[in-house]
Amino acid sequence: MSKCRLTYFNSRGGAELARLVLKCKGIEFEDERLEGDAWTQRKPDTPLGALPVLKIGDKEYCQSAAIARYLAKENGLMGANNLEALRIEEMMEMFAEMLNRELIKIYMEKDDDKKKELVKTFSEGSLQKYLDFVEKRLKEIKEGKAFLIGDKLSLGDLVIIDGLTMIGAFKIDPFKDRTLLKAHFDRVGAIPEIAKWVKERPATNF
Amino acid sequence: MSKCRLTYFNSRGGAELARLVLKCKGIEFEDERLEGDAWTQRKPDTPLGALPVLKIGDKEYCQSAAIARYLAKENGLMGANNLEALRIEEMMEMFAEMLNRELIKIYMEKDDDKKKELVKTFSEGSLQKYLDFVEKRLKEIKEGKAFLIGDKLSLGDLVIIDGLTMIGAFKIDPFKDRTLLKAHFDRVGAIPEIAKWVKERPATNF
Repeated sequence: MSKCRLTYFNSRGGAELARLVLKCKGIEFEDERLEGDAWTQRKPDTPLGALPVLKIGDKEYCQSAAIARYLAKENGLMGANNLEALRIEEMMEMFAEMLNRELIKIYMEKDDDKKKELVKTFSEGSLQKYLDFVEKRLKEIKEGKAFLIGDKLSLGDLVIIDGLTMIGAFKIDPFKDRTLLKAHFDRVGAIPEIAKWVKERPATNF
Repeated sequence: MSKCRLTYFNSRGGAELARLVLKCKGIEFEDERLEGDAWTQRKPDTPLGALPVLKIGDKEYCQSAAIARYLAKENGLMGANNLEALRIEEMMEMFAEMLNRELIKIYMEKDDDKKKELVKTFSEGSLQKYLDFVEKRLKEIKEGKAFLIGDKLSLGDLVIIDGLTMIGAFKIDPFKDRTLLKAHFDRVGAIPEIAKWVKERPATNF
């Protein structure tokens, strides 16, 4: 893979999954983070007036999940066959659904009491359904003691740790009564390249 | 590919892209459509209490876009390399974004006047940004006179016709002043297997 440039704001948000892919494989890339005027100036030149964008050669591509998938495929993190990829895709789409239906609502709510109520409803409701599903899929292979598709790390595992980290950013504990999920999170997080990146990445709220 | 069962409600919605993949390749499958009690009974057994699900062998997989991607890969509709797949993924994610940010809001709005206002804002605003991008990507290859990735039909083209059909279901004309987009829509729609399916599929609002 030739050196690419990943452009986003100074936060994890929609770019962190792509960064995790590149970092865990030790791929060199430009981790460009735009703020204020720099973004205003660049915005009209981006494909959809939004970030992240990935520059490959002289061309920019958009959409965070599209970028993460491309980088995962280029670096052997998309499974060995279409069924393994389907297991990975289920996780990606499920966490995207959680973000679109629940977390964005909480993020946008400015009233503190209403925000707390949304967090409570989500934590006790659909979050449990989502996490049950993650644990179910993990358990199907090697009793949940390996990675999502077996012995090999994949984009699916990165999706899970990125998604759980995002839930944590809302002060919600996704690991309550979930030892299997916590063990998976720690197993992925203990991969040296990932541990190093999580430690050294810029500290941001989201 | 062994025969699979695609389960959804009796509408296009989140299953039509997968159906288009299967139909355009002439793949036999069970097009199961659940209504009322039948869905209530099956719901607890589905992976996330939601449809669509795809049954392969004795196992059910969930998430509409994950299912569509799997079927596209199995049937040679995901491009010849990772960069072609990235062009396809941009389209998938862009239409998903449009659905999540705009169309769902319009769909859920019950007040007629407010609904009209949302349609107007969307039609004159972000819809044009999205369609500009589709036309830009189409134009990059063979001046927009072929398919999204060139001479070969891909999931990207099916995403575009499915997305534009969905926009049309909201009584919004996506083709106003867009002859290139209309020509692409007609080109894909003229593929015999697709034309046949669009004509014979159950007539539903969405």
